[in-house]
Amino acid sequence: MSDIEFPSKILENAVNEFSRLPGIGKKSALRLSLHILKQDKESVYRFAEAITTLIDEIKYCQNCFNISDSDICSICSNPRRDHSLVCVVENVRDVMAIENTHQYNGIYHVLGGLISPMDGTGPDDLTIAPLEEKLKKGEIKEIIFALSTTMEGDTTNFYLYRKFQNYPVKFTTIARGVAIGDELEYADEVTLGRSLVDRQPFEKNVQ
Amino acid sequence: MSDIEFPSKILENAVNEFSRLPGIGKKSALRLSLHILKQDKESVYRFAEAITTLIDEIKYCQNCFNISDSDICSICSNPRRDHSLVCVVENVRDVMAIENTHQYNGIYHVLGGLISPMDGTGPDDLTIAPLEEKLKKGEIKEIIFALSTTMEGDTTNFYLYRKFQNYPVKFTTIARGVAIGDELEYADEVTLGRSLVDRQPFEKNVQ
Repeated sequence: MSDIEFPSKILENAVNEFSRLPGIGKKSALRLSLHILKQDKESVYRFAEAITTLIDEIKYCQNCFNISDSDICSICSNPRRDHSLVCVVENVRDVMAIENTHQYNGIYHVLGGLISPMDGTGPDDLTIAPLEEKLKKGEIKEIIFALSTTMEGDTTNFYLYRKFQNYPVKFTTIARGVAIGDELEYADEVTLGRSLVDRQPFEKNVQ
Repeated sequence: MSDIEFPSKILENAVNEFSRLPGIGKKSALRLSLHILKQDKESVYRFAEAITTLIDEIKYCQNCFNISDSDICSICSNPRRDHSLVCVVENVRDVMAIENTHQYNGIYHVLGGLISPMDGTGPDDLTIAPLEEKLKKGEIKEIIFALSTTMEGDTTNFYLYRKFQNYPVKFTTIARGVAIGDELEYADEVTLGRSLVDRQPFEKNVQ
């Protein structure tokens, strides 16, 4: 596909732009471009405007750095949330995933990435300084680390813990174990091993 | 995902617009929207402009109805192509696929779809009338049908053949058979059966 001759430079340009998106190859980009051509102009303009509005007008909550339409997001401005409980996550997708469980009543702190020397992301590229500012104010009682169990996630967990361990705060991580509904034989050995080491009193399951 | 609460209406709107594209679900749409947010403004504007330019400025060749930047496409305006040989295809992707083989020196006629009562696409929705105009001019010697072997493709083939059979033109279809490089045991039985019925002199393979 890469050396194919397009019948139109305009089409080729659109295909090239679509294929810059993650997970979209040249063939999908061509399919999307031809789909666009079949739509009415109003809906195509609405699509293009949604994209430019996104980059132009989106804000980040000044408290937790989650994506927001206002200076303080709806979670941070909610007085019924526990502001002494802060869940540290990588990005807004993680916030949305946790909110979707309806099991969490604290607030968040969105790092905006993970420490990754390979990708050139260091601590200064993340929202670590504002998190320390919050710690200094003494309003936080517990910090829950909810980062990916990847090398980058573990590195970031460890960095944050080392940096903040002298603050009078409880540090926890989300539980790791065999997913509910999963069969034991298909669980990977690291997860299964961890679930044995971190076993819980049986009574907790029958509450 | 569908009943998830987005932290931002602007983000939600972008996700909804992305998820209108074929093959892109809500999760992919969110991933694409967050990718957009990480780009610099210029490249996002370039993307949006490529899309609106596509719908605003694309033309269709007045001869073959292929996508084109000019009134007559580069294939139809090429004097070295055989204008008496017309390959009838569904859309521009098929033109690009055939051009990519470098085995075809005729011109095309892009129908813009296939007859599909299910989808409400009838003969009048396709570029069949202009094809008949070309036939009337008497410049066409052979029409090659290169449509999908689906019910819609077969219906369209049959409709065109019945409509045009009295014109003094040779009608052919592209060869169907076991793909080159495919193993026999994995070929579907209809294709394998057709490849036996339409067997070719062995000498043709050793030319």
